[in-house]
Amino acid sequence: MNSKVAAFDGWIRSDFVTLNNELEALYFEQDDKANVAGIGEHAKQQLEAQGREHIQTLLAQGNTDEGFDRAFDLLGNVGLYMAACRRHGLSDPDRDSSSPQQEASALAMHIAASIGVVPRFATAHLCTHNRAVDGQYKRFTDLTDERVFVDYNSKGILAFKRAADALMRVLPLGVSHPIARDLFHACADALEEVKESNRVLFNTLDPERFFYCVRPYYKPHHVGGQVYRGANAGDFAGINVIDMLLGLCQANEPSYGRMLVEKFLYMMPEDQAILRDCMRRQSLMDEFLAVAPEHHGSSWYQENLSAFLRLCELHGEIATQHHNQLVHTYIVRPSEQMDQKHMGQLTASGPALQGLLKALTDLRDRRAGAPREDILTRYNELAHLRASLG
Amino acid sequence: MNSKVAAFDGWIRSDFVTLNNELEALYFEQDDKANVAGIGEHAKQQLEAQGREHIQTLLAQGNTDEGFDRAFDLLGNVGLYMAACRRHGLSDPDRDSSSPQQEASALAMHIAASIGVVPRFATAHLCTHNRAVDGQYKRFTDLTDERVFVDYNSKGILAFKRAADALMRVLPLGVSHPIARDLFHACADALEEVKESNRVLFNTLDPERFFYCVRPYYKPHHVGGQVYRGANAGDFAGINVIDMLLGLCQANEPSYGRMLVEKFLYMMPEDQAILRDCMRRQSLMDEFLAVAPEHHGSSWYQENLSAFLRLCELHGEIATQHHNQLVHTYIVRPSEQMDQKHMGQLTASGPALQGLLKALTDLRDRRAGAPREDILTRYNELAHLRASLG
Repeated sequence: MNSKVAAFDGWIRSDFVTLNNELEALYFEQDDKANVAGIGEHAKQQLEAQGREHIQTLLAQGNTDEGFDRAFDLLGNVGLYMAACRRHGLSDPDRDSSSPQQEASALAMHIAASIGVVPRFATAHLCTHNRAVDGQYKRFTDLTDERVFVDYNSKGILAFKRAADALMRVLPLGVSHPIARDLFHACADALEEVKESNRVLFNTLDPERFFYCVRPYYKPHHVGGQVYRGANAGDFAGINVIDMLLGLCQANEPSYGRMLVEKFLYMMPEDQAILRDCMRRQSLMDEFLAVAPEHHGSSWYQENLSAFLRLCELHGEIATQHHNQLVHTYIVRPSEQMDQKHMGQLTASGPALQGLLKALTDLRDRRAGAPREDILTRYNELAHLRASLG
Repeated sequence: MNSKVAAFDGWIRSDFVTLNNELEALYFEQDDKANVAGIGEHAKQQLEAQGREHIQTLLAQGNTDEGFDRAFDLLGNVGLYMAACRRHGLSDPDRDSSSPQQEASALAMHIAASIGVVPRFATAHLCTHNRAVDGQYKRFTDLTDERVFVDYNSKGILAFKRAADALMRVLPLGVSHPIARDLFHACADALEEVKESNRVLFNTLDPERFFYCVRPYYKPHHVGGQVYRGANAGDFAGINVIDMLLGLCQANEPSYGRMLVEKFLYMMPEDQAILRDCMRRQSLMDEFLAVAPEHHGSSWYQENLSAFLRLCELHGEIATQHHNQLVHTYIVRPSEQMDQKHMGQLTASGPALQGLLKALTDLRDRRAGAPREDILTRYNELAHLRASLG
């Protein structure tokens, strides 16, 4: 890491956190905890100015070609800075026509275009690619609830990746291969871990703290003249690999396909490649459906299909848990109690809350293979496969 | 799969196996079980001629661009055919100056060059990319010992890959990250599985059957004018990723580096990419050594290092188990009982047995971090790290 990059990284890991902590304390002691206007102006100016100074130096230094990892990490630091500016009202897409953080925008766009990702911090910067120094990884604040949120999201993402790895390794072997069973079991173990991290997250994270002091750092904001949505814990390939290889979601289904297209550049390039590869594959469910008429009596069919159907159940349970517990507890319920004037600023992912909830409900039902008349789910195919057992 | 490719695949899965079975039975009933000369000539000719007919049709058809997976699979089928010709003495690098299977050589070279692998069957064709049809994956024979060998090699390889995945995911997080501990534990679970598959393999595989009826299909042979060594169960990136990320082996160590270079084209292209990426990384051991002086008192250091050192132990135990049990039981001991005139044809990996054993012993001691004066091992560094615990 060159000295200018290191100096900025040092600032993000120290004074930046202190200033955010200070501002969060001021906001949170108000009756209207969602208000940031006119609060802690001195700290806000310090944050913006100190960050800008580092960034100006880096922008002048130009491309130092220290490789992808360093470039991605630096983009994350610029992104954390810009997200904090947005959180404190130092930028606001409802008010500004482009980002007031011009140098940061320029640096973010330069790096992002060169490595093939969006020019803002993404989930990977916080979870899977957030380098710890002496046990501490990068965060906006020192709040326990932020740490809990990142920790358990990371655990869930890594377990989902492990589950996806196992399913991808079934593809060249086929669903009738004796080793496919081992891989289905490895996938199930990983999905059980996802369920468990979601459960711990749900039992530990304080809804009010999360809603008022963590989530605002994930708001959409301008980088240059364009608004980019917030980081989303689903921005990695694994969860969609599982959706598609289990056969529960299909890339040629318009709303699901649109979601994939939209999230490509929010993922690490290696994840983009995995997802692209996976989109050209036949699902394992379709493979089972194709061999069912001829082979349903074979012992491999009975054993491998049982293990496969357990995965579909687990994936549905996780989607239902996520939607019914996490989304409702940490987004819907607190938003109902929030002053209506802040509603426009609520969602991290762009669309207004009702639209978001509808899309998430549809996704939950696809993942769970629930019976729906209005959208395509694999309810009938799952019933057909279940009936071929035993 | 086009109809000509499918017809060849069908033959490999049926008559090819029947003919190999028939020949193995004839060889094995002899006093000198290693002799193939003058035995089952009619079956040998049938095998060669039937395979050639399929291959001539495919060669005339030319490149049909059905994608990497299909091309790789077809290469595997051509490779199984050529390896069987070699096993039955229908080709022999001690006798021939190039492959008598000219059409098969041409087809293998065409495909292999276009997808970036060696023009012969490799471990992936038998283990991780061997598509099962109605529960049966491709094999040379129907012998139980061949199935056991492939099954437990596959289980071991898949578990090693899982272990490597976990270690690679530590790289962007750093050894002090709280999630690194989870990843070290996931890696340990996978390594325990490797140990267990080796144990079952050792308790199940009959040494004589393996030595006389399975191993000969892995002999070096010509493809065109060049001799290629046999498939080796270590031909995947995972095991070297573990070697290098644990810091037990180093790519800049001449004999280890040579081994990596030699095996690149025997691996799947995706594994080549993983290994290449890994060769440019700092090992996790070196990361621990760098932070030890300043941070050995931290709780993260104590916990994460303990988990890391357990991985080094496990990797060493597996290497020792492989060398002392598998290599000795299945190669060294049977070779001592074999007629001396066949010794030149013994090793699958090219060099004569003594040279191979020396290289394998060195590799075992590197992986185990054993004290050695004559080669570089990490014995001292491991002792230093162990002393910094508790």
